[in-house]
Parts: sequence; structure tokens; C-alpha cells
Amino acid sequence: MVNISLDSIKRPTLLVDEAICRENIRWMAEKAARLGVNFRPHFKTHQSKQMGRWFREEGIKSITVSSVSMAKYFNEDGWDDITIAFPLNLRESDEIIDLSDKARLNILVTMAEPLELFSRHKKNSEEPTGVYIKIDTGYNRTGLIPSEIEEIEKIINTCRQSYSLLFKGFLTHTGHTYNARCKNEVEMISKEAFRLLGSLKAKFDSGPDSLTLSVGDTPACSLLSNFDGIDEIRPGNFVFFDVMQTVIGSCEAGRIAVCLACPVVSKNATRKEIVVYGGAVHLSKESVFYVDKTIYGFVCTLSAEGWSEPLYDCYVKSVSQEHGVIKVSNEVFLSIRCGDLLGILPVHSCLASQCMGNYLINGTLAEAHM
Amino acid sequence: MVNISLDSIKRPTLLVDEAICRENIRWMAEKAARLGVNFRPHFKTHQSKQMGRWFREEGIKSITVSSVSMAKYFNEDGWDDITIAFPLNLRESDEIIDLSDKARLNILVTMAEPLELFSRHKKNSEEPTGVYIKIDTGYNRTGLIPSEIEEIEKIINTCRQSYSLLFKGFLTHTGHTYNARCKNEVEMISKEAFRLLGSLKAKFDSGPDSLTLSVGDTPACSLLSNFDGIDEIRPGNFVFFDVMQTVIGSCEAGRIAVCLACPVVSKNATRKEIVVYGGAVHLSKESVFYVDKTIYGFVCTLSAEGWSEPLYDCYVKSVSQEHGVIKVSNEVFLSIRCGDLLGILPVHSCLASQCMGNYLINGTLAEAHM
Repeated sequence: MVNISLDSIKRPTLLVDEAICRENIRWMAEKAARLGVNFRPHFKTHQSKQMGRWFREEGIKSITVSSVSMAKYFNEDGWDDITIAFPLNLRESDEIIDLSDKARLNILVTMAEPLELFSRHKKNSEEPTGVYIKIDTGYNRTGLIPSEIEEIEKIINTCRQSYSLLFKGFLTHTGHTYNARCKNEVEMISKEAFRLLGSLKAKFDSGPDSLTLSVGDTPACSLLSNFDGIDEIRPGNFVFFDVMQTVIGSCEAGRIAVCLACPVVSKNATRKEIVVYGGAVHLSKESVFYVDKTIYGFVCTLSAEGWSEPLYDCYVKSVSQEHGVIKVSNEVFLSIRCGDLLGILPVHSCLASQCMGNYLINGTLAEAHM
Repeated sequence: MVNISLDSIKRPTLLVDEAICRENIRWMAEKAARLGVNFRPHFKTHQSKQMGRWFREEGIKSITVSSVSMAKYFNEDGWDDITIAFPLNLRESDEIIDLSDKARLNILVTMAEPLELFSRHKKNSEEPTGVYIKIDTGYNRTGLIPSEIEEIEKIINTCRQSYSLLFKGFLTHTGHTYNARCKNEVEMISKEAFRLLGSLKAKFDSGPDSLTLSVGDTPACSLLSNFDGIDEIRPGNFVFFDVMQTVIGSCEAGRIAVCLACPVVSKNATRKEIVVYGGAVHLSKESVFYVDKTIYGFVCTLSAEGWSEPLYDCYVKSVSQEHGVIKVSNEVFLSIRCGDLLGILPVHSCLASQCMGNYLINGTLAEAHM
């Protein structure tokens, strides 16, 4: 239920279905509680204070962000337990130190050297900053591999030698689950990650404060039914889901909570194509291989109540800067006129939100941090 | 020459080299003057009032934009001859009518029906709106094909029957030059487009005011040495150029006028990869096949004077939301530390500018319309 006045939409507009969104939040929060893991949702997907409050209403107290500026933005709204799940950017050391005074802040490190430099910069008298070591469990983007014991020890020792750094544990992002196309694959990737993190915990867990193992990606957090040995999950995308997640199998299309409303501006009868105002600057250029072709979004119809199920005989064929080209069935072609609206479910909701910078929620425009 | 204090850069920052930018503008303006075509640069690439003034200083008086809101933005800064090169969006009819009072405004139509609806909405007493018919000369995105004579006649008649619509001519965008990889291909595509437009002009040019034929894409406008029969060019990207244009052959890398300065946040010795703060939300996900692989940007070093020539043994291998992963040579790997900056020349400068929303020009942050 979206409650929109379709007539008021003049340009591409990102609609949020609050009910679906809240249902997604509740579902993941309940799952985390049931499985006994801390839920630290990644707020980079929505970047919205308003939606952050929907999480708070479900009892969520800890969050993940992907930049220092995003941490600041949410701290302003009362969030005081924040992990910046992005490698330590030394150029923002002052901002990190400042934020550590205002919140229980955790940073991520992938190497000892930058942490040593940060540690020298930070006075021992200042509030401690939590430190997670990023472990590469196969995604091969950032992080130490579990056998790099010497570097891991150096990081832990840097923390121990500083009163203002607190070693918290190991964190991984199994982003390679995005290449999976069924639950079994997601499970295999995740279980191997859990095993690798578990072996590090067994090796380094010595003090009275147990180390935390933190994992987080929407496919794993959606599909797995246990997180043995894991202490914390950090999914983000599930708040909106998107076409990519339906292709992976994380969700049904009915759980996608954002839809770009796009004015129809042109039609081509020969090619059975409809061109909408809504392109790469609104959706991003993210695409996914779906059944037998690369697509840039699912297509749906709009009403004052919200959007329809995807029209599976239509798809977004291409996007350029402001144009989206939609292949449609003959029936849809005949039913749509210039000036009508069509809905596009984005392939990647995190990037579409980032591109748009604001949402229409129950008829009211809500700014986000972008 | 950029004149930046590198120490002041804390986050991904889009640097503009004003001298290169002004040189690109002057070069295209002089070329248009020499070849006897009106120069109506597309401002969607930079979307900046400040850079718009650099064009004005070269004597440019007419511009192209890709949205009604962009037309408004530039009209506020004194631009009063504007073509909105995007199919008529009926949902913005009121804004278009309002703008037609403030500027000589041209709109684009691809079908008769929306223009008829617009015409009924517009009072005959209001200032006239110029109308271009978009012709599809092979790009197959929007536009009528030249043989759709009946529809073209309908559009022209709609204009003739209205005191407030003025039929101006035919416009095409040969965006398929972006798939070309040498000058000959670009020439072949363009000449066919010119021939098709020319035949339409011959057919429909009857009145005392000659019809205008308008073309515009950076590859053609950069590489062609004549525009026989064409009245107007509308390139946009050339103001910055980018990696894509060097791959097509429109420019040398030395003429790229924007560079994303990115803090180095992680290194991987095994894979010889450097991870920077600078990803899809800064550069977009645009990629290009270069030599033997898909890349997301060229890499360069930075100094207070600006950026180096591209390091051709390095490239941006992938981008995720905030991360850029850069493959580097052994030498570069050893010379770069976390906390340093690296420069990335974007694959598509229009989208990178749109993602960033502002520029660092000679040490001062300049907001844009995004």
C-alpha cells in the first residue's frame, strides 16, 4: 500500500512501500533473534533517517554503514552503536576520532600499517574505537586471508598496545553469494566462511571478552537457517530487496519494497518498445542476466495503491542517461499511452536509492543521506 | 593545472582541470565556426552554471539539455535559447509552457499524439515553443524512421495548426558511434545519418524559414571534418571527454578534464591490487572493453598541479558501492601507501559527474544541478 497521487508524479520518482519495507525489517529482526545472532543491519541501502526509525521500532540498536559521513548522519539521529564496514580511511582519522566520542564506533582494518598510523594519531585519553579485522573468505575484494596469521597478530598487538583501540573480532562479507543462483550455492559459500572465521576465533579468543564474528550479505542472511558459531549478521539490501535478489533466490518479487515510477515519453510500434523518463541516472547501470538476457529492471503497472506484480513478458532492455527502453508485450503496448506511468523494479536497490537521493513514502518526499 | 591541496582531500573528489576544459570548449567552438554549423553544446555532461559561463565566454549562446529541470537550472543563469533533447514528457507540460515564456525553448517529439495533447494544453496566446522531430538514424532508441512520412506530416500539421508551436526541423542522435572503434566507422554512421536528414529537409523544407538539421554526439563532432548539409551540432561529453572517448578514438587521454581523487584504503600484495575509497556511487558502473579486458577507469597519480598521464600498466578492475579495486604494476604497488591518493579517469564522465553532484575546481567546490 503506497497511497500515491499518480497525477502528482512528473519525473522519475522512487516509491517506497512502507508496509513491505517494515515487513522485511521485522522478518529479518525476528530471524536474527530466533537464531541467536545480533542484528546490525547495513544502512547503506536506504541511507534514510526515517527508515532507520522503522528499524528502531523493531528494537534494533546497532547498525552498519559504509562511510564515515554516513556514520555521522545516523549518529545525528541517535544511533550510537555503529560499525563502519569499509577499510579505515586514514584521511578521515579526525572525523573517526570525533565520532568515537559520540558513539560506540567500530572500524574495519585490512592491514596493520594504517591502524598503527591511526593509533599514533589517536590520543590514549580519547574514547576507545572498536576494531574489526576484515577477513577475505573468498570474495577477493578486501581483507586478510585466514592464513595471514602474522599480519593478524600485528593488528591485534597494535590494539593491545593502545588504550584507545579495542579489538572486537573478525568480520567478513561473502559478496560472492551474489553470483549464486540457488540456496545450495549460498549455503556452501557461507559455511566455508563460517568455518574460516571459527578457526580464527578458536585461535585468538583468549580474553574474558569473547571475540565477535560478524557476517553479512542479504542472500546468506535471507536463505540460511542457521548461523552456527556466528555472533552477528549485517545484511542491508533486504530492507528493499530488488531484481538481483529474486534472481539469486533470496526473495519473491512481491517483497521488493521500492519501485521507480517513470513517465512514458515515447513508443515504438515496430519494435514493441516503450521509452520512459528513467535511466542510468535514476536506476544506475546495474544489470543482471535473467533467464536468457541481460535486463535492467522488471516492469510493473502503477495504481494509487502501489505497483503490480512484475509483468514477466516485459523488461527494461537498456538504459542511457535519462532514457529507459522497455520491451513490452503487444497487450501492454496497446494499453499504454505517452504521459502514463510505468513502474520499474530496480536490479540493484542500493544503487537506485543512491542515484535518486530521496524517496516518496506515503505521498511525502523523504530526503536521504546521498 | 589544477592547484589542489592534496591534504585537504578526505573523500572521493571529482577534480576538474579548468585549462583542459576551456581548451576542449574552445576547440569545439572554433571547429563549429570553421565548419559553419551552429554550436549548441549539450550541458547534461557538466550540469554546472560555472562551466556554462566558460562556454559563454567563447561566444556560445544556445544550449542543449536533457530534462526540463536542467533547462530551468540554466535558464536561471541567463541561458535563453535551449533545446530539451529528450522526448516530450507530458507530465511536465506546465513547466515547459512556463519556460517557453522565459526562453526560446525547443522540445523534441517522437510521435504526433503527445504533441497534440500538449498543443491542446497550451493556449495560442502563449509564447511559441519550438518543435524538433526526433529522427532515428540507426541508434534504435527513440525517434521516427525517415520513411514514417505520415507521422512526420501529422506532427508538422499539428505545429502549423497552432500559433504556439513552431516547427523547427529534424534532430538525431547517432549514439551508435559509441560502438565504433575508429574514425572510419564514426564517419560511415554519421554520413548515413546526414543523408537521411538531408532527404527529409529536401522533402519538407518549403517555408521562408529554412528547417534546421541538428546532430550531436561527441565521437562524430570530434572526428568529422565536415558536416555537409547539417545546420547544428550538439555534442556534450567533449567538455570533459573520458576513457570511453579515448577508446573510440575521439581524443587523446591528455584531453580528459575530470579525474576522481580517491584515498587508498587497502592493498593486497598477492593479487597486486590496491583498493580505493571510490566506487560505483562515485564513478557509476559504466565499463568499457579496453585492449583485452573490461575496465572501470584509467589510473593516474596526483600532485598539486593535477594528474599524470594514465599509468597504462594499471586499471580499475571492478567497482562496488564504495570500493574501487585497482590492478597495479609491481612498481606502483610498492610506491603507494594507505592514506595516499590515486586518480581515476572515469569511463563515462557524464555519469561520474551525475554521481558526484559537485566538482573541485581550482581548490573550490562547485555545486552542479544533480
